Amino acid sequence: MKIGFIGLGIMGKPMSKNLIKAKYELVVMDKNSEVTRELATLGAKIANSPKEVAEEVDVIITMLPNSPHVKEVVLGKNGVIEGAKGGLTIIDMSSISPIISRELCAELEKKGINMLDAPVSGGEPKAIEGTLSVMVGGKLDLFNKYYDLMKSMAASVVRVGEIGSGNIAKLCNQIIVAINISAVSEALILAQKAGVSPELVYNAIRGGLAGSTVLDAKAPLMMDRKFKPGFRLDLHIKDLSNVLETSHTLGVPLPLSAAVMEMMQALKADGLGNDDHSSLVKYYEKLANITVGH
Amino acid sequence: MKIGFIGLGIMGKPMSKNLIKAKYELVVMDKNSEVTRELATLGAKIANSPKEVAEEVDVIITMLPNSPHVKEVVLGKNGVIEGAKGGLTIIDMSSISPIISRELCAELEKKGINMLDAPVSGGEPKAIEGTLSVMVGGKLDLFNKYYDLMKSMAASVVRVGEIGSGNIAKLCNQIIVAINISAVSEALILAQKAGVSPELVYNAIRGGLAGSTVLDAKAPLMMDRKFKPGFRLDLHIKDLSNVLETSHTLGVPLPLSAAVMEMMQALKADGLGNDDHSSLVKYYEKLANITVGH
Repeated sequence: MKIGFIGLGIMGKPMSKNLIKAKYELVVMDKNSEVTRELATLGAKIANSPKEVAEEVDVIITMLPNSPHVKEVVLGKNGVIEGAKGGLTIIDMSSISPIISRELCAELEKKGINMLDAPVSGGEPKAIEGTLSVMVGGKLDLFNKYYDLMKSMAASVVRVGEIGSGNIAKLCNQIIVAINISAVSEALILAQKAGVSPELVYNAIRGGLAGSTVLDAKAPLMMDRKFKPGFRLDLHIKDLSNVLETSHTLGVPLPLSAAVMEMMQALKADGLGNDDHSSLVKYYEKLANITVGH
Repeated sequence: MKIGFIGLGIMGKPMSKNLIKAKYELVVMDKNSEVTRELATLGAKIANSPKEVAEEVDVIITMLPNSPHVKEVVLGKNGVIEGAKGGLTIIDMSSISPIISRELCAELEKKGINMLDAPVSGGEPKAIEGTLSVMVGGKLDLFNKYYDLMKSMAASVVRVGEIGSGNIAKLCNQIIVAINISAVSEALILAQKAGVSPELVYNAIRGGLAGSTVLDAKAPLMMDRKFKPGFRLDLHIKDLSNVLETSHTLGVPLPLSAAVMEMMQALKADGLGNDDHSSLVKYYEKLANITVGH
């Protein structure tokens, strides 16, 4: 099967390499010609526009930073829609607003083009290993048809519902992760200010109801002052921005998500946008006048 | 060894029974004479005041609702201090303010009385099974001396630091649990309002970075509308009240803990104080105008 792949960034590049490993024939496109040349050495064909990609394949994977980029690549000048034959399927694996996923899909269906939204979690390491988690929204027959394709980049591929549901699930994930990081920060900062060892507290509580993947993954980083990403604060801000846009549209106030967004914005303003999102603890250190260096 | 046990409530009763099972000789005291009579049938001796308990034993366990009750039992009229010989040790297993633990300990040391703060987590089921988690603050030699005694009610007994540290660890635990419940609520309510199955979202995200003990323990209860405690909202309000009193004293602002406290207060005002703390999701349902009954 011949696959188009648009967007060869930190995530898209290793994902496309895993497709090549799985013997798919690839037509790739990215603004960064260094990356497309790298993929070409592995056998991928380079296209110069989304339109050109669409002219050559029946299914296109997009892996782009956010909603506007996906809209531009699909509907813009020299976009997918200009080169697409009826029956083409776009699998958008970017993490974008589920509202935009739904709008795009409705627009595309008018032209006989299919769409799945299929954002991933797991970050660069799991993209490289091919062990991402994919959350899929869209028609069941499309999901079944492209399950194996998605599975060649992932450890799990789960259909959550109709179009947009993949991104809703992804936003739910990002809500919980963001707030849980804040929860761990509040606990550790209280221990520290009380003169109690955060590490001993961590060990005392991790096995009980306070236990979480975030606690085990991020508390050690916070205590060791290791803020190399991982997952960049800037990207979590993007996700929370999509969370709040969606929640406001749906009429569901999310006060803690909004509060954590403000904390992350404060850190970004302090120049920490490229840190791991666990650097959220620095917001609390600043509030509590704790000085610890970086 | 002869042990005094003061406070035979939901937690204290099964804890004291486990001590009897472990062949300790007990002198018990509680305002509720029905419970003391029940313990007497198992071989415990009944005392009529904390003072009387103190006259008979070298170590007293207290398991009381909150800081004022502990202060009253220890320092009040007919309190422990009136009957205590020098060298007596009080093991306060109540969940109270760590500031009060430290004050009490300092007061008692003047009279040659020792103290450990040793709050527990795990709730009634684990109190019955004898598998509580005990977080201990106080001198190492006292901790070592009474480790076996505490272990006869618990699966784990961990020393976190000096006096007050046990309650600091407990508050850290309660901060994370409260905020994590809110995180799960925000995620599930967004899914529901977006028309996506909260159950499918739960299944899609529980294995990743959003995974937590709270997610696995509480999301199913929220989805099944099962709000029988578990752990009562009223008690979590008590703990968060101790969190905020402590954090304000230490000069460490905890905005999310404070926000969740307000949510819980709103539910209490709606008459839901006796529900499980997972009923926090009802705060969000009310905000989002979701009607689902109880």
